[in-house]
Amino acid sequence: MNRTHGGDWAAFEQEYGAPPLDFSASVSPLGVPEAVRAAIIRAASAVDRYPDPDCRALRAAIAAREGVAPEQVLCGNGASELIWRAALAARPGRALLAAPCFGEYEAALEVSGCAPVRVPLAEPFLPTEALLQEINHNIDFVILCNPNNPTGQLIAPPLLRRIIARCAETGTRLLLDECFADFLDEPEAHTGKGELSANPQLLILRAFTKCCGMAGVRLGYALCADAAFLDAMRRAGPPWTVSTLAQAAGLAALREEGYAERLRALIRAERPRLAAALAALGLRVVPGEANFLLFQSRTPLDAPLHARGILLRNCADFWPLDGTWYRAAVRTRADNERLLAALREVLT
Amino acid sequence: MNRTHGGDWAAFEQEYGAPPLDFSASVSPLGVPEAVRAAIIRAASAVDRYPDPDCRALRAAIAAREGVAPEQVLCGNGASELIWRAALAARPGRALLAAPCFGEYEAALEVSGCAPVRVPLAEPFLPTEALLQEINHNIDFVILCNPNNPTGQLIAPPLLRRIIARCAETGTRLLLDECFADFLDEPEAHTGKGELSANPQLLILRAFTKCCGMAGVRLGYALCADAAFLDAMRRAGPPWTVSTLAQAAGLAALREEGYAERLRALIRAERPRLAAALAALGLRVVPGEANFLLFQSRTPLDAPLHARGILLRNCADFWPLDGTWYRAAVRTRADNERLLAALREVLT
Repeated sequence: MNRTHGGDWAAFEQEYGAPPLDFSASVSPLGVPEAVRAAIIRAASAVDRYPDPDCRALRAAIAAREGVAPEQVLCGNGASELIWRAALAARPGRALLAAPCFGEYEAALEVSGCAPVRVPLAEPFLPTEALLQEINHNIDFVILCNPNNPTGQLIAPPLLRRIIARCAETGTRLLLDECFADFLDEPEAHTGKGELSANPQLLILRAFTKCCGMAGVRLGYALCADAAFLDAMRRAGPPWTVSTLAQAAGLAALREEGYAERLRALIRAERPRLAAALAALGLRVVPGEANFLLFQSRTPLDAPLHARGILLRNCADFWPLDGTWYRAAVRTRADNERLLAALREVLT
Repeated sequence: MNRTHGGDWAAFEQEYGAPPLDFSASVSPLGVPEAVRAAIIRAASAVDRYPDPDCRALRAAIAAREGVAPEQVLCGNGASELIWRAALAARPGRALLAAPCFGEYEAALEVSGCAPVRVPLAEPFLPTEALLQEINHNIDFVILCNPNNPTGQLIAPPLLRRIIARCAETGTRLLLDECFADFLDEPEAHTGKGELSANPQLLILRAFTKCCGMAGVRLGYALCADAAFLDAMRRAGPPWTVSTLAQAAGLAALREEGYAERLRALIRAERPRLAAALAALGLRVVPGEANFLLFQSRTPLDAPLHARGILLRNCADFWPLDGTWYRAAVRTRADNERLLAALREVLT
């Protein structure tokens, strides 16, 4: 079970005495948006009372943004907590994952009493019709991430629509994790949101973590037309996991427009440059569409990059990948150049 | 299953147009400690990176304060999240609760697949030897709150020691929720902390919520000598539920000394005054030892107090209590006087 994660700067700092230049976490390289920081500072004066357990104001704002009813929104302590709540609420007998994928899916399913079936994706890890064939009446639950972590690969829109339709036929709940969708060139072409109202079995996860420089705040949300299932998720965990600070930060992030656009533009410009430069170093790069890139190196990279103050995400625990695979966040031009310079030293 | 809670000021505000004078949540009436507020403001600049999932600095500080090893500390999103993690990690077949008690115990046990046995406490809700008799080899898990919520009653120290010893004999895991222990006159006389090292089956919960004006931040911790069980709790939920802001706030709260002492002094002075004044109004008051009081009123109080901008915790869902029972936080002299004035109007 994959339970190590990127972004463990504290472990690095403990070992090396200073925090890393961190490519292991797929977070925003632009820092905290000023409006979000200001909202947290304002809210800090009111943390003596409990958070609104129903996140009423925040859910209303998310619902308005997403064009759904507030009853179709559930907020959580990051999307990761919502994965756990979904697994505990669904208690699937048989669940399907497309591997490699985020380790929390399997961890949450196992605690909910289910050992999931992992359908391996063949390199370059594009989901194919083979996945569709695996969905049948015996499968209660499917989790797909689009674009996928750690591959960055997208499900082709026609295939996604067929998967959603297939899950409707087979009575299978489909959790579609769109936490990295904000970085796509055409997010609207790839989201399942348009299918929500016709598909109560569909649950979509989104996060503020990546797009809004808020990984440390903890805020994500689920969208689902099945209000009873969202209510079961609400009851499948403690009532106050979304802090007063997170609710205030989320409201500010929804009003903030420029930051996400700047971030998207940066990723759009830097991702192809970084991919080309990694390939030019002889690394095998998966053509991902998110704010990170997956690549393979026959030369071990962890220790030599650590020595240079740089942290990558080694993918040894992303079955069926092995320790020759690495995930690197796309960061600013200057940061990416530092990574490339270090890799040049190590590889040539 | 009791899943409503005090402190839902947002629901009150939605219905009445303004937030209540809130006696329904047992939080600090002294606001956020300045050092905690300042720590949150400083940390707001660093929320673009993930929280340390292992809370290394905070756990070290808690361990130093509590005189245990850092491996014997697990931090959570409030003590409430740790209740859920404990239930999911233990997956008890048979669990025991002393009722009335906090509704999250039963909710967490039910999601972990266990319908707990509720041992009713007879008015005035003092735990007695009868509880001891119920603990046998068939009971995997016992949850006790000391002082108890909503009664404020303490387990007599000799009985507590016998319960801990009995759980050791029967191989029963004992979760001792000490979230309100900071308000006791002699906290050291009533804590189970001294029994931890000899009793790996003992798990103690503490929170920053009540003592440190931090209910909206979400931070609590568990102490246990069984590091493997703490690790199972860690794996029984998502990895980042303690935010960067909560970790910073907790470190500041541990360094802050004056606030908790001021708060304790206030509660010590106001609790007997409020209890006597409630009794003088003909209300039946349970002699509690925490920062709240449980009392019974044959006259319905909710609607008339709402009309006066005041929120109590109606205890109808604290089985075996009914809607004639109310819990009121002990607040500042001025706040308590407002409550008493309103009650005088309603009752006389």
